[in-house]
Amino acid sequence: MDENIIVLGGDGFCGWPTSLGLSKAGYDITIVDNLSRRKIDIDLECESLTPITPISTRIKAWKSLTGKEIQFIHLDVSSQYHKLYTLIRELKPMSIVHFAEQRAAPYSMKSPFHKRYTVDNNINATHNTLCAITESEEDVHLVHLGTMGVYGYGTAGMPIPEGYLKVKVECKQDFKDIEILYPANPGSIYHMTKTQDALMFYYYNKNDGTRITDLHQGIVWGTNTPETMLDEALINRFDYDGDYGTVLNRFLMQAAIGHPLTVHGTGGQTRAFIHIRDTVNCIKLAIENPPARGERVRILNQATETHTLRNLAVMISEMTGAQIRYYANPRKEDSENTLSVCNENFLNMGLNPITLNEGLLTEVIDIAGKYKNRCDTSKILCTSKWRRDIVLDTEGSLEPAG
Amino acid sequence: MDENIIVLGGDGFCGWPTSLGLSKAGYDITIVDNLSRRKIDIDLECESLTPITPISTRIKAWKSLTGKEIQFIHLDVSSQYHKLYTLIRELKPMSIVHFAEQRAAPYSMKSPFHKRYTVDNNINATHNTLCAITESEEDVHLVHLGTMGVYGYGTAGMPIPEGYLKVKVECKQDFKDIEILYPANPGSIYHMTKTQDALMFYYYNKNDGTRITDLHQGIVWGTNTPETMLDEALINRFDYDGDYGTVLNRFLMQAAIGHPLTVHGTGGQTRAFIHIRDTVNCIKLAIENPPARGERVRILNQATETHTLRNLAVMISEMTGAQIRYYANPRKEDSENTLSVCNENFLNMGLNPITLNEGLLTEVIDIAGKYKNRCDTSKILCTSKWRRDIVLDTEGSLEPAG
Repeated sequence: MDENIIVLGGDGFCGWPTSLGLSKAGYDITIVDNLSRRKIDIDLECESLTPITPISTRIKAWKSLTGKEIQFIHLDVSSQYHKLYTLIRELKPMSIVHFAEQRAAPYSMKSPFHKRYTVDNNINATHNTLCAITESEEDVHLVHLGTMGVYGYGTAGMPIPEGYLKVKVECKQDFKDIEILYPANPGSIYHMTKTQDALMFYYYNKNDGTRITDLHQGIVWGTNTPETMLDEALINRFDYDGDYGTVLNRFLMQAAIGHPLTVHGTGGQTRAFIHIRDTVNCIKLAIENPPARGERVRILNQATETHTLRNLAVMISEMTGAQIRYYANPRKEDSENTLSVCNENFLNMGLNPITLNEGLLTEVIDIAGKYKNRCDTSKILCTSKWRRDIVLDTEGSLEPAG
Repeated sequence: MDENIIVLGGDGFCGWPTSLGLSKAGYDITIVDNLSRRKIDIDLECESLTPITPISTRIKAWKSLTGKEIQFIHLDVSSQYHKLYTLIRELKPMSIVHFAEQRAAPYSMKSPFHKRYTVDNNINATHNTLCAITESEEDVHLVHLGTMGVYGYGTAGMPIPEGYLKVKVECKQDFKDIEILYPANPGSIYHMTKTQDALMFYYYNKNDGTRITDLHQGIVWGTNTPETMLDEALINRFDYDGDYGTVLNRFLMQAAIGHPLTVHGTGGQTRAFIHIRDTVNCIKLAIENPPARGERVRILNQATETHTLRNLAVMISEMTGAQIRYYANPRKEDSENTLSVCNENFLNMGLNPITLNEGLLTEVIDIAGKYKNRCDTSKILCTSKWRRDIVLDTEGSLEPAG
């Protein structure tokens, strides 16, 4: 095969295992990254629980283990437009996978600086990518990592369709059927930027015919893929802190180190989940099933199951004996919601979903246990709050607040 | 009265007459502007047909004529966050009127640079304003100039409601009534940024309770208001070029200098219009009728009538004897559409719409005639095109292309 794929943000939590998975599958991978996620660690005075190696070390290890070359370009997608454009002209990639956005909701809510960084970085990164593809006149398929959070949760009580919603609109004493982009209801500044991305995709697809797949991903759990497990130098990052850690991984890690499981609010929030291995599988399927020329933006729900946070905590508590503690919710969100998600598109492409199973849960607990000496327990609780008037809770209790 | 209003972009085509109108009404006005519109003139090698004076001269003239002080702060809203925040803390304005966005669709389509500037400037300007209001903890009512163009034109054939659309959604074998933000269908990068603004308003209103009025304005025509006519030093700008000129003003100016009226496409495009004096009237009404605490974003259609471009051209041709020429359309848009716009909200607040009338049309022709020696006729035709593969037409013909 001689097919180029550019992975924007290919050094990150989803980007790195995706880059390896696609390289293994035979694609020629170029990672573009400004290493911003590693630099944010410095500012947050926190780091991956797993000892990730520098990007050059990672790439060298992959080469020596598999013989496969991955190219790395240090480039800020949100600000170095011309360098990005030139790269696209040169490589003529079949696909660009776009992970180059600040991806944590709590981080995006920390302060005006963090809100503004998230908006500026994410909007300009996506727009520069679309603009450069258009300007290059290459027929590139853009695959973007979005989030289930663009939908809000549980709107109108029906299963969430894949991006578009059929509605009836009153028109001249009659009702007309139209299909619209699912109405956006973002829950944080981070999620808001993804709803703004959707409008850019809609526009560039309409005006310039850009082929785009937008993946509305659930909360990722797990850390390793078959590729990252080949050598410790390839290990994926594992975030356990209150800003970047995702909820299920946080629970598993807390169980491993003997910290109470930190449930915020009642735990009645229902969320959609996906294992990191299925993130990689889905992106490969998305690349291999591109929209046709002239097709509207393809929106796929990239999630395999839904759970309430409370039930996850109870399950892990039963597995491990960990205590559950309920903390005041620093987010502004519904305390309880139902959620059901359509994911027919990926199932039809052949996805065989990995769902919660004891083996994979244990694998995460084992990883967390192996590196627990690297944990700074002061970083475990969430410190970002959605509004100034929300009071943080550092004690928690055995029952949710009434 | 001792009520502060900050006018972001108060040196521009809508901002300047609005600032004067509000100053006359007794508000204490602070204009914030980075003078970007004047600088864009330099890059485009074009200038206002009317000889506008520097901002300090304008403000001094206003003071000497009326005794009223207007403060000017040179500040880039899209990049100087802390200065903006400090100003809000200091002035505690009742309202901020936000015109600080790049406002021309053709300019936004000229090149990757112009696309990227428009996105970066407009999104960051709006977000910084929202973020600074939230951070200030002042109860500021934000009044934003949006555009009718967020709706697309003629969707589903019914009159365009004011921002929200009632739809029926299928849910468990039944239909549920919900009200959603009117589905966005932007026609240019510029319009796209306004649809992205709408999502920021939705989010900040939901999370932080920010009181916001978003004005979906039609195409502005006319140039003078009673205030700008008081003295030549107060004259408003008049754009006639293919990038910044608005269609009706361009026709009137073309008639005044004996240039054929430049209709793009068939002229069957229907658009909504408003006179600059009603822009000022509407903004004053919006300020004086703010949403209550806890109210959702108030969206008002700020337009008083709709016309096809063809009919406008025929009317002006009949008034003046000007020839009409049809040029290939550099935009990607429907060649013909119907459009009907609800504007009940402003009517209920007491707006007495100024509609097309010979007196006001003649006033524009007179202004254009008075300053026609300042016209660079090479700037009249549109040179921005919506896609690379569109072929510009510099000849035109007496009939639209078939």
